[in-house]
Amino acid sequence: MTIPELIEKKRNGGEHSREELNALVGGFARAQVPDYQVAAWLMAVFLRGMTPRETTDLTLVMAESGDVLDLAGLRDTVDKHSTGGVGDKTSLVLAPMLAALNLTVAKMSGRGLAHTGGTIDKLESIPGWRDQLSDEEFLSQAREVGIALVGQSKNLAPADGLLYALRDVTATVESVPLIASSIMSKKIAAGAKTIVLDVKVGAGAFMKTPEDAEKLAQAMVEIGTLAGRNVRALLTDMSAPLGHMAGNSLEVIEAIWTLRGEGPRDLLDLCLALAEEALVAHGETPRRAEERARNVIRDGSALAKLRAFVAAQGGDASYIDDPSKFDVAPGRAEVTAESSGFLSEVDALAVGRAVLALGGGRERKDEAIDHGVGVEVLHKPGDEVEAGEVIARVYHRERGVERALTLLREGLGVANEPPSVPPLVLKRVGA
Amino acid sequence: MTIPELIEKKRNGGEHSREELNALVGGFARAQVPDYQVAAWLMAVFLRGMTPRETTDLTLVMAESGDVLDLAGLRDTVDKHSTGGVGDKTSLVLAPMLAALNLTVAKMSGRGLAHTGGTIDKLESIPGWRDQLSDEEFLSQAREVGIALVGQSKNLAPADGLLYALRDVTATVESVPLIASSIMSKKIAAGAKTIVLDVKVGAGAFMKTPEDAEKLAQAMVEIGTLAGRNVRALLTDMSAPLGHMAGNSLEVIEAIWTLRGEGPRDLLDLCLALAEEALVAHGETPRRAEERARNVIRDGSALAKLRAFVAAQGGDASYIDDPSKFDVAPGRAEVTAESSGFLSEVDALAVGRAVLALGGGRERKDEAIDHGVGVEVLHKPGDEVEAGEVIARVYHRERGVERALTLLREGLGVANEPPSVPPLVLKRVGA
Repeated sequence: MTIPELIEKKRNGGEHSREELNALVGGFARAQVPDYQVAAWLMAVFLRGMTPRETTDLTLVMAESGDVLDLAGLRDTVDKHSTGGVGDKTSLVLAPMLAALNLTVAKMSGRGLAHTGGTIDKLESIPGWRDQLSDEEFLSQAREVGIALVGQSKNLAPADGLLYALRDVTATVESVPLIASSIMSKKIAAGAKTIVLDVKVGAGAFMKTPEDAEKLAQAMVEIGTLAGRNVRALLTDMSAPLGHMAGNSLEVIEAIWTLRGEGPRDLLDLCLALAEEALVAHGETPRRAEERARNVIRDGSALAKLRAFVAAQGGDASYIDDPSKFDVAPGRAEVTAESSGFLSEVDALAVGRAVLALGGGRERKDEAIDHGVGVEVLHKPGDEVEAGEVIARVYHRERGVERALTLLREGLGVANEPPSVPPLVLKRVGA
Repeated sequence: MTIPELIEKKRNGGEHSREELNALVGGFARAQVPDYQVAAWLMAVFLRGMTPRETTDLTLVMAESGDVLDLAGLRDTVDKHSTGGVGDKTSLVLAPMLAALNLTVAKMSGRGLAHTGGTIDKLESIPGWRDQLSDEEFLSQAREVGIALVGQSKNLAPADGLLYALRDVTATVESVPLIASSIMSKKIAAGAKTIVLDVKVGAGAFMKTPEDAEKLAQAMVEIGTLAGRNVRALLTDMSAPLGHMAGNSLEVIEAIWTLRGEGPRDLLDLCLALAEEALVAHGETPRRAEERARNVIRDGSALAKLRAFVAAQGGDASYIDDPSKFDVAPGRAEVTAESSGFLSEVDALAVGRAVLALGGGRERKDEAIDHGVGVEVLHKPGDEVEAGEVIARVYHRERGVERALTLLREGLGVANEPPSVPPLVLKRVGA
């Protein structure tokens, strides 16, 4: 079939074979198919959809368009993916927990862009910590410590990057099969046998409704399962940021508290739930999984794993034992409640943008960031607050303070009636 | 709105304003919007459709993207458009009829491409006839003779040409609003007050079913009416070629016969019906229109107009009086009926391809063609034929004879039962 015939097939609601998807999307990545044909095809996919089999084949075509990591020499490899949120320091807590549970976390992580943070940026708050390891260092550290976490050094799923750039300018981003295949192509190329997905729902997230989020979770679980991986997904609430802190150093500090068992309840609960999913995927019963996950926090073994991991990648592990060492920006400014009542809203997007305004994030790739600035939201939606009470605090170095305060004042609401607060874990989706 | 927001609007089934369509399609013609964004938008239009108002605005944006002819100084200007067929020499008969009816035909015509012929190519069978006139010559000839017919010298609706080229490679051709706006943009830029449309239906035509053809006709009538023109359309059968002849000289000869009242019935009937539509559009009653149209054949005034028109554009008018002067290819080859029965099918596409194989058409623009070759189909579907009887004749100069005969043998069917032959004029569509 010619490319126009393949576009016509999808336009008419047909189902592509693996070969057809390779001709289209693989051909695009090999610069054999022009962008205008792929753009028309993407719109046809957006409006006509894709079957699970087809979405899986698209995922595999993209996964195989670049390097595919071979983690076969490691035991019980687990990768985790979050669809992105604000103040989401989950990986910093979960990875040490999984290592303490005798699973292996050998993964690539990204840097932050716009209002969302990135795990690599957060870890770079620790002096000495470096995001580059040789292939040998990466595998041996994963084997010995149970965690190895590096920046995107490999050429993982380049077809996905190219397709995403085209989707971004052709109004074809918000399509479940296209989002699912984009995420899963990178996860499959990254090599882990088990993949735990944290699909965020709500104002601060990509998927605004539980229905859409469940469709996406279902699609990703189907893809992973058809591709021979263990995949489990949680739908979790992202109407407000996780924990209290947003900003690089502040989030590492909050992660350390959480591993000490002194962190915010929502962050701990989410990390426990994700760890349980990983254990269940490895054959543990739900009850025993919960018990084991709680135990690695209680006995300090997860915290010890964080220490060992930071040290192994050159970081100063004394920061883990004494978080007061972190370079937190000295400036303070506060947002107070205008009236008494219940905190009705903490707009995660506004919090993320406030951190960006303070210099804690980047608008463009490769911009330098200030690891010490950030935002602390002292309450959770539903908490009672009194007029004049501090509800948010900004940690700054003069830059962007007014902008950050304006964003937070608009993003934090107080109401007379308590809001309905959704549960943190909305649903579990597994094969 | 940004271009991605405009694409998203159509993707979600929204209706564009004139300004939005100018930003998208006008912007594309001005090289301000890249082809990949227009390609995604075209697919969204294909799958979501367009309202009549929106289709009219798209048409006007394209019509105004280049030159717009000013025919205001001419009286009762009529343009005719056929959606393309095989052996369609209608313009050669109709234009002289309309001129004899005191209407003015001042139009641009195209050359043939692939299996369809073009009026300019056909007229060039007459020695001396030239397709180029200065603007002054064009208008004065139209005023004095009633017919002026030139090649595509002006830059009419360039946005349509660009959009069509993109549709052709992105599987977005067969969309009623896109086809209708493409045709009507050129007709509106061409300036005539009255537009008569011959929408072909059947195997040899672009629209395969009467339902699709009617939708297209309706859309074009709506556009023209909203744009302030008189538009009437006929849905006509194109399951078999018009008349008996296909090939340039042969079609001019058949047109002359028809203007003499000695031509094939179907061609005469179609030309009468189209002339009647033009007259009705100018306020004539249908009955009086029919009478007047028949009369310009009967009294020879239409034939006289052809003679005057050919002479005015430098052609040797003696060919009109003595068609034996035409350089018809001397070679002959015949297709005979394999069995006795009824001619069940004359595949117009096969006939068109046979002419192409003989050298009478071009695969690429600017290719030279042989005006003297062609195909004569001696019968019409439904005619009784006897085994061994000649049913088609090829006029050749050795080139492509076997290929042409094979195509004709496959395209001409004989059956035991008479086929159901559709009427020539299936429907009239007017505002």
